[in-house]
Amino acid sequence: MTMYRPEIKVLDCTIRDGGLINDHNFEDGFVKAVFTALAASGVDYVELGYRNSDKIFSPDKFGKWKFCDEKHLKKIVDGIKNPPQLTTMVDIGRVDLGSIPKKKDSVVDVIRVACYVKDIDKAIDLTKRFTDKGYKTTVNVMAISTALQPALEEGLSDLSEAPIMAVYIVDSFGALYSEQVHFLVNLYKKYLNPKGIEVGFHAHNNQQLGFANTIEAIRKGANYLDATIYGIGRAAGNCPLELLLSFLKNPKFNLEPVLEVIEKEFLPLRKEIEWGYILPYMITGVLNRHPKAAMAFRKTADKDKSALFYRDQLAEEDAA
Amino acid sequence: MTMYRPEIKVLDCTIRDGGLINDHNFEDGFVKAVFTALAASGVDYVELGYRNSDKIFSPDKFGKWKFCDEKHLKKIVDGIKNPPQLTTMVDIGRVDLGSIPKKKDSVVDVIRVACYVKDIDKAIDLTKRFTDKGYKTTVNVMAISTALQPALEEGLSDLSEAPIMAVYIVDSFGALYSEQVHFLVNLYKKYLNPKGIEVGFHAHNNQQLGFANTIEAIRKGANYLDATIYGIGRAAGNCPLELLLSFLKNPKFNLEPVLEVIEKEFLPLRKEIEWGYILPYMITGVLNRHPKAAMAFRKTADKDKSALFYRDQLAEEDAA
Repeated sequence: MTMYRPEIKVLDCTIRDGGLINDHNFEDGFVKAVFTALAASGVDYVELGYRNSDKIFSPDKFGKWKFCDEKHLKKIVDGIKNPPQLTTMVDIGRVDLGSIPKKKDSVVDVIRVACYVKDIDKAIDLTKRFTDKGYKTTVNVMAISTALQPALEEGLSDLSEAPIMAVYIVDSFGALYSEQVHFLVNLYKKYLNPKGIEVGFHAHNNQQLGFANTIEAIRKGANYLDATIYGIGRAAGNCPLELLLSFLKNPKFNLEPVLEVIEKEFLPLRKEIEWGYILPYMITGVLNRHPKAAMAFRKTADKDKSALFYRDQLAEEDAA
Repeated sequence: MTMYRPEIKVLDCTIRDGGLINDHNFEDGFVKAVFTALAASGVDYVELGYRNSDKIFSPDKFGKWKFCDEKHLKKIVDGIKNPPQLTTMVDIGRVDLGSIPKKKDSVVDVIRVACYVKDIDKAIDLTKRFTDKGYKTTVNVMAISTALQPALEEGLSDLSEAPIMAVYIVDSFGALYSEQVHFLVNLYKKYLNPKGIEVGFHAHNNQQLGFANTIEAIRKGANYLDATIYGIGRAAGNCPLELLLSFLKNPKFNLEPVLEVIEKEFLPLRKEIEWGYILPYMITGVLNRHPKAAMAFRKTADKDKSALFYRDQLAEEDAA
């Protein structure tokens, strides 16, 4: 039941979460190679980026996958056999509703709304507007390892009334251990499953627990699972798709195209941009903090002095 | 109870398992730096190598940590404040009993006997001989992911009568998932705990589950835990010590010296020899096989062609 459950849906967010490393500047050839491999691998959904407003973020500073215009999306999916469903992500307060076409004029199937617990009601409002335009929606609750239980339960109660497919547990800081994953999946299920809403899980890999925590989420009943090719993603990255597909026994999944695209595209890319098990990211995970201090530290000449970074982080804790 | 249990003992086998990558050829300066950092980190045991016979293995071909002569061990531990207890490992049929001094003439505290399920009775015989010489002993049952349950239960029953401190679950192939770890720890406990023998866990990291599985073993009651600095070890390596110490809340453990020695010794070493999350090792883990085919593949010009390696491995499966 853990390894083969027909309800399980795998969503690859390689280009979306990976874009947080390089300001969403992936070349079309790379994105096409990724999408082609993912279609062959049998994943259910692919997320190519954010649909944020170009009035709020400058297209001079960010690549096209921060905005995901229809014309750019179409260029990627055109001609692909058996394409997975397409998703894009929006952030609260960074979306221009007027610029988003109706579903009948879009290649996008699902819009995922990312928010913190405090903004769940704003997220619900967005899901209603996207539903009115004809899209399916999810809500992805970030930084869940810092959420206080009463506020989270109130949010889940509100979400249970919303027109959404799934609500995700997003371990933004890579801080959760298995027992916490079990607790959160059970809590989400209690509010959401009776209303036909699924539980999703999005891991970060700061403590090498991204894949392990995803398995634990599956064991407890999460059916919407995020992963990325070779674990690419901000800072320590995400649950590696190749591991997740190896674990899942549904014969619709195919590992080989993922291995091929890692060899051709990701091994060269890893020499240009970094992600993965790097000690400052491990340290922010252990301390249950946003990786931004570690990301800044990795741009300094001291970048490998992880003991120094650890002492600095502990000193901040003392000052709090 | 999971994160702080006074009975938990951490054993670092950096030099012993890491030695499987470089034929045990670590320089004295490196080994001294490692041992010094480990003493400061508060780990309970340190394993510096194998105590195999120089009549069976040639000292021309293997470094000194394959043999662990007293004089070499003494040089490392001399002058270290609060040294951890010292362990060495022996393999069945590769040890020269006559060459091993009595405990009173040795700096070694514990001898760990590595064996497969089929050789458990030979291992028990060795533990008796080492006990007679004054040492504490453990038995480390390798390749546990391929053990058949009736033979394993018979072995555990025999081990429960042996003069040993602990019996280890050794996931040599990095193939176990959490539910299998739970099953095995419970099975070991049933036979061993009533006789005062502890359960140990030694992970390999082929599927990025080394640390996660070690946590799961702790949750179910394993108290002897192996780890290595920066996860060094054969093929994909082991449970990273820095992650394990971050997780355990016993204040006797200290992360900082481990971070320091990674920066000074392991980041440079990783440029010379490889270990960690490398796809051919991931594939042997998924397929529950010894990593030797992957280790050979990594020495060829095709070393990054993991899809090719995967197809070759599947073809072997068809032929079986």
